[in-house]
Amino acid sequence: MESILALSTDEQTAKWIPLAENYCILGSYAQTELGHGTYIRGFETTATFNISTQEFVLNTPKISAMKWWPGELGRSATHAVVFAQLYIKGKCYGVHPFIVQIRSLHDHSPAPGVTVGDIGPKMEFNHIDNGYLLLRDVRVPRENMLSRFCEVLADGTYVKRGSEKINYFNMIIIRVKMLSNEVVPTLMKACTIAIRYSVVRRQCELKPGDQEAKILDYQTQQQKLLPMLATAYAFHFMNQYMNELFSKGYREIKQRNFDSLPELHAFSSGLKAIYTEHCTAGVETCRKACGGHGYSLLSGLPSLYTRLAASCTYEGENTVLLLQTARFLVKCLGAAHSGQPVPPSVAYLSAANSERCLVRDKRDFLQPDVYVEAYRHVAIRVLSSAAAKLQALVQSGAEQHEAWHQCTVQLVHAAKAHCHYHVVKSFAEAVEKLGQEAGIQRMIKHLCGLFALHGIFSNTGDFLHDGYISGDQVDMMTASYLDLLAIVRKDAVPLVDAFDFTDETLNSALGSYDGQVYRRLYQWAQRSPSNTKQPNQAYENYLKPLFQNGLSKL
Amino acid sequence: MESILALSTDEQTAKWIPLAENYCILGSYAQTELGHGTYIRGFETTATFNISTQEFVLNTPKISAMKWWPGELGRSATHAVVFAQLYIKGKCYGVHPFIVQIRSLHDHSPAPGVTVGDIGPKMEFNHIDNGYLLLRDVRVPRENMLSRFCEVLADGTYVKRGSEKINYFNMIIIRVKMLSNEVVPTLMKACTIAIRYSVVRRQCELKPGDQEAKILDYQTQQQKLLPMLATAYAFHFMNQYMNELFSKGYREIKQRNFDSLPELHAFSSGLKAIYTEHCTAGVETCRKACGGHGYSLLSGLPSLYTRLAASCTYEGENTVLLLQTARFLVKCLGAAHSGQPVPPSVAYLSAANSERCLVRDKRDFLQPDVYVEAYRHVAIRVLSSAAAKLQALVQSGAEQHEAWHQCTVQLVHAAKAHCHYHVVKSFAEAVEKLGQEAGIQRMIKHLCGLFALHGIFSNTGDFLHDGYISGDQVDMMTASYLDLLAIVRKDAVPLVDAFDFTDETLNSALGSYDGQVYRRLYQWAQRSPSNTKQPNQAYENYLKPLFQNGLSKL
Repeated sequence: MESILALSTDEQTAKWIPLAENYCILGSYAQTELGHGTYIRGFETTATFNISTQEFVLNTPKISAMKWWPGELGRSATHAVVFAQLYIKGKCYGVHPFIVQIRSLHDHSPAPGVTVGDIGPKMEFNHIDNGYLLLRDVRVPRENMLSRFCEVLADGTYVKRGSEKINYFNMIIIRVKMLSNEVVPTLMKACTIAIRYSVVRRQCELKPGDQEAKILDYQTQQQKLLPMLATAYAFHFMNQYMNELFSKGYREIKQRNFDSLPELHAFSSGLKAIYTEHCTAGVETCRKACGGHGYSLLSGLPSLYTRLAASCTYEGENTVLLLQTARFLVKCLGAAHSGQPVPPSVAYLSAANSERCLVRDKRDFLQPDVYVEAYRHVAIRVLSSAAAKLQALVQSGAEQHEAWHQCTVQLVHAAKAHCHYHVVKSFAEAVEKLGQEAGIQRMIKHLCGLFALHGIFSNTGDFLHDGYISGDQVDMMTASYLDLLAIVRKDAVPLVDAFDFTDETLNSALGSYDGQVYRRLYQWAQRSPSNTKQPNQAYENYLKPLFQNGLSKL
Repeated sequence: MESILALSTDEQTAKWIPLAENYCILGSYAQTELGHGTYIRGFETTATFNISTQEFVLNTPKISAMKWWPGELGRSATHAVVFAQLYIKGKCYGVHPFIVQIRSLHDHSPAPGVTVGDIGPKMEFNHIDNGYLLLRDVRVPRENMLSRFCEVLADGTYVKRGSEKINYFNMIIIRVKMLSNEVVPTLMKACTIAIRYSVVRRQCELKPGDQEAKILDYQTQQQKLLPMLATAYAFHFMNQYMNELFSKGYREIKQRNFDSLPELHAFSSGLKAIYTEHCTAGVETCRKACGGHGYSLLSGLPSLYTRLAASCTYEGENTVLLLQTARFLVKCLGAAHSGQPVPPSVAYLSAANSERCLVRDKRDFLQPDVYVEAYRHVAIRVLSSAAAKLQALVQSGAEQHEAWHQCTVQLVHAAKAHCHYHVVKSFAEAVEKLGQEAGIQRMIKHLCGLFALHGIFSNTGDFLHDGYISGDQVDMMTASYLDLLAIVRKDAVPLVDAFDFTDETLNSALGSYDGQVYRRLYQWAQRSPSNTKQPNQAYENYLKPLFQNGLSKL
């Protein structure tokens, strides 16, 4: 069973597993319950060890305890790795994974004591049969508990070995992979479609009497799309940085050194939250920027959104993740203030915060050191302010958990500011490294500035709050930001072409490389079943009687 | 044909029209073209008057000219009101509406010269057959031009009569109705579902060792949902105010007094844009706040979003509408500065702007006059700043249209600030009027404060920019805002119950009145066709051969 363990904990998805020469099984990873998602300790499914039979007896004692959402569970899987509270001699040892056969390998009927089915339609992913699972006294042999880290011996002795910390690392790997493979590419696709469409679509006259203008030549359209393009690039470079960080962490962990885990966990949690939030919103911005045609499924945009929207919830709900990042940051801030060493990503908290931005001209805002410093300032200020409130509440007699609770809105803000600072910083560093290729560097530097200034423009309050920048400086920054829109506009098409998606991958009538938007929309629409199926059944069955008898006879 | 005219221009939707004793027709309102939506003047469909036959000859000269999106056109309508550029003796007279029969009343086949079909799948509204329409030399008699305001005489003379301004009023009525009947109720439904679910769902411990807490007791969940609840109420009261304004306008217009039209048009355009933007985002916030279950269609939430998302585009694309509002505001600001009279909704532009908020205690931020004044201040400042930039550009030699173009991002901001001020103001006035009912008034006043402070909290930069409020005051405001979350939390359930939606209307397993979330999710999922259809075809056709032969033989 070692192979299943490896597959399950690394991938958390269903797998085909060859079992013997003539059989294979399909496994589902059954963790989430109807009433419990994020809070694993709250799971209600139980696995009680029976010494006399050397079996675990699994039960879902109430409706809210049933497994709900696991993929491939609804109609396909033969086996599941079921997470359940382990009970031995009446004592609970917490949640552990158990292999359970849920369907017959001969006729696919549910195994004895098993009730299993599909959870019904979803916003997307309807090709995946997410399922539910009820267990009533389902017995599995002792060997079916996955036992790399903990084992139950024949006499009921519970043995712990190795480190459970490795489980955190698995979560981190999944998040980092998901950001690189799913989340950022989805925003890149949406940008490609919307930007290509916006140089084909023409609407109104910019100058009276002229031909109608390409919509990407409008400042308002640039303001919608180009910051999203810059975001896609920013996250792309941040992914490279993260991957390096995690490779380093992985090497250390293989040598049983788990020191970097808290930082990696906090960092990947925060980044997962802001990536999915920004990319999901960005995809929808791109979709809306395509007007009515963005509402057609033929644009390819609605399904990009409805798929990506799930990412804000799965692999950790975003608010919960940001609060985990915040908890790490508050701890590190305390350490930094008392002169203790802190991990690299929070080393900036040890330095004194800058007092005031010294910019006197709008062009100064294009300098990376200016905007990186501004983001650093805000990250320190927002975190310090939340931590100060927390401390004040505790000092005035509030219990720790109650004080934490009253600060959560501000702590989430602090976690976001920390992540935003790092994305801007890594983008600026990536620009530096492009020194060998002056043309590309110039282009990417504009994007980096656009990303940074768009963030300031959209959250001026964060920067104005303590007078770090003044209202006059905000006006300069805004002028630079609007200038950058016009500059990046010129390179917008090559910048999305560089993502190098094929037409097949984009699957969009609006976003194909050749720009034949209207012809393709028409061709694709003609192929719609409602046009090709003859006769028109809706007419035959419902309209014809009405048309030919008149409404008066209804 | 008078009756069709009335129906079409008032409702802009397809209608059943009894034609004779034994027949009726179904009409579609064919305005939008594949290549032209917002900019009606750009339409490419032509209607050329032929004096010798007394007919109009209609053509869609290229693919981008074909009608695209009209409802009921795809498979149902027999007739369409087609908007086309009118040509008489080689001269273009602009866009006019023509009644065209597009399908046979006997066998529903396309009429000669007509190509018609369905535009394919959409994000929602797949029950409506939005269609396309190509016309090749389709001839209709002279009488088929809708001629209330303009007529073509037999000799080809073009006669204009009455006022075209009334068409603006039709657009205004449609927008006002749409906000009251569709947009705001959708947000109310989403709030009802999410808030009811959030007092059933429990997750994690607020206090160590306690029962898991209701998620609505978390500050972060309150911060997501309660401002959306306040927004629903704010827009509800603003709707009442708007309806009164429009009733007054309607009475004047019936007496051929069109003076209020520009104001009504600007106001309804801006409100349509901010309502649809806030309500769409709010519905999605509610959906995400329900975690994984919000992603299930059984929650009722995804379809609320995918329907409402269309409203940001139809009846006027939001950015285009906001710029129309801004154009009106800039004009009125100029008039106000030169001492001319201005319409009531912009009278506030005539007064001098206040310099500084004088609040010294967090409780002061709960006073309506304090926050209404803050919004007024920002509305004036942002508009004045955009107008000053516009003027400076013109004075430095830019052409008017170019100067306008360079200010559009800031002009959109100004239009939003104007609308936001009015919503806050009308909400505060509505609270005043509840004086007879102290209990209700207290509750609604909290909501009003929450709406206003959430707006400040989310856009602190607007208020800090010129020092109107200080960073310290932002901290006081934030404290008051967070206090209000906890206060409104207590009334949250009755406040959504007051919307009085039936379970049938909500159609949500999460949002029913009895709170039986998990039982209902399970019951509804069991009814899913993938559970009730036997045998499981996916298993029979695809899985069984794999399971029983092993992957090795694939």
